[in-house]
Amino acid sequence: MRIGLDVGGTKTDAVALDPSGALAGRVRVPTGWGASAVIRTIVEAVALLREDAGIPADEVASIGIGIPGQVEPGTARVVHAVNLGVAELDLYDAVGASLGAPIRVENDVKAAALGASALHGGSGSMAYLNLGTGVAAGIVHNGALIRGVRGTAGEIGHISIDPNGPLCPCGQRGCIEALAGGGSLAQRWGSPGVHPVSDVFSAADAGDARARDLRAGLARAVAAAVRVLVLTVDVDVVVIGGGLTGLGAPLLADVSAELAASAAASPFLRSLRLEERIELLPSGSPAAAVGAALIGDTAGTEVVAHG
Amino acid sequence: MRIGLDVGGTKTDAVALDPSGALAGRVRVPTGWGASAVIRTIVEAVALLREDAGIPADEVASIGIGIPGQVEPGTARVVHAVNLGVAELDLYDAVGASLGAPIRVENDVKAAALGASALHGGSGSMAYLNLGTGVAAGIVHNGALIRGVRGTAGEIGHISIDPNGPLCPCGQRGCIEALAGGGSLAQRWGSPGVHPVSDVFSAADAGDARARDLRAGLARAVAAAVRVLVLTVDVDVVVIGGGLTGLGAPLLADVSAELAASAAASPFLRSLRLEERIELLPSGSPAAAVGAALIGDTAGTEVVAHG
Repeated sequence: MRIGLDVGGTKTDAVALDPSGALAGRVRVPTGWGASAVIRTIVEAVALLREDAGIPADEVASIGIGIPGQVEPGTARVVHAVNLGVAELDLYDAVGASLGAPIRVENDVKAAALGASALHGGSGSMAYLNLGTGVAAGIVHNGALIRGVRGTAGEIGHISIDPNGPLCPCGQRGCIEALAGGGSLAQRWGSPGVHPVSDVFSAADAGDARARDLRAGLARAVAAAVRVLVLTVDVDVVVIGGGLTGLGAPLLADVSAELAASAAASPFLRSLRLEERIELLPSGSPAAAVGAALIGDTAGTEVVAHG
Repeated sequence: MRIGLDVGGTKTDAVALDPSGALAGRVRVPTGWGASAVIRTIVEAVALLREDAGIPADEVASIGIGIPGQVEPGTARVVHAVNLGVAELDLYDAVGASLGAPIRVENDVKAAALGASALHGGSGSMAYLNLGTGVAAGIVHNGALIRGVRGTAGEIGHISIDPNGPLCPCGQRGCIEALAGGGSLAQRWGSPGVHPVSDVFSAADAGDARARDLRAGLARAVAAAVRVLVLTVDVDVVVIGGGLTGLGAPLLADVSAELAASAAASPFLRSLRLEERIELLPSGSPAAAVGAALIGDTAGTEVVAHG
């Protein structure tokens, strides 16, 4: 059995995959805040999953952990996991011994890309575009993740698509993330609310000009991200996930309309059939945790049954 | 011996690589215009190279051909080789039998990427950015070319970086190619001349405002292309080649200055050290022909001595 954990800002999703790759168990627990609470969350989630799915300790082959931070290639050292209140944490030191199985750690978006690829049938060429507080992608090529020489592959949120666009906290103007990141959208919208981007969509539907502008910018930036992924790596499909995909059909409709408009203006873009190459990750998909279980899987492409 | 040909718009560069990967011969011949003249050029270049380097027919293991057009994956069918006056050509049918060795065909920019990677020591993670009439890149990951599912990987010239930028023949505005492609620059400059982009640089040095604007746009777009390549695939190095690199040091200085300016404004970009990750392909480099010889080479990473 391989165990995979997706440690999110509010909850941690844990799955077990049997040797055939099928989902053999799944539990979700709230994530604690700060390094020691995150460590406790990981240990508890693994214990609960093993109990729930009846997995003896000696049957756990590996435990993969997807975490929203930078992970130093080939290590379990996490830095800048700001959404978890973690500045720096070495998961080998913290939980390596107590979990009783080899651990592997990866950035959560990259892990989700592996999982989305596996759940997609492992066709081997796809990108996972995460629209959360920030925007980043994970790219799977020939069934394996492209990490890059310094681990910054997929950081397309900081590609500028408009020199006169909004200022990004990164220091550039018009970054994809400045237009399509939930954090930037909430800040530019300015009004408090539990779901600020959802409020923007509602206000735009009600005719608010500023909301329509923000919403149009979101669609434009997501469409640009899709173009960047297809024109650079030519992935077969771009699966869009992350918190903002809770907006559901209206978001997909906006992005599709933007891609259709650019295809109407450009025969070159039309030939790429981009509208047919995007999908939303289904709500509640275990992709990120499944991908965490597959981290370091040298077999590459792998078919995993939908749970 | 493996033979590689780079069929360019004006000349064809042909090289022979011995089994160790070392350059064993090189000839250059003018390229004819139109399908039958291109076929003759290929046959003559191979014959001349074999004679010049003293290679018996039975010692030619393979002949790779890099050609400036679209090549259907896994075939020798070339379409839209507009700079050669070739609308459509199947090189298997045309020269497959007469050359007496298995032939392999690849888009010239992708072949040049393979060659630049090999000449670079085959470190396995690099991009070749071609600045010619158009702009496109070839990306080498883990020593192998990323072709993509439809062969459009590396077509980053048609990523828009400015919604208010110049109109690109592709139908979009502000494409990297509309700002940095030799064809677009020559058209926007408007004055006739043998080396229009060189004229733009001279006029900019002399203070011409429109030339300075075009020259600044070129630097901005090349810097954007470097960012796209590093933020998407995180290649170790971007080697810049193609006709425009005949501009030499002033071009590299402009692009470096643009990357330095954006790094000064953005701590994130600064951390990527992009100025240290770009290089110009040396003038006269046999990279494209060497890469053509390596097409389909399953060994992946390979060290080839500089010729």
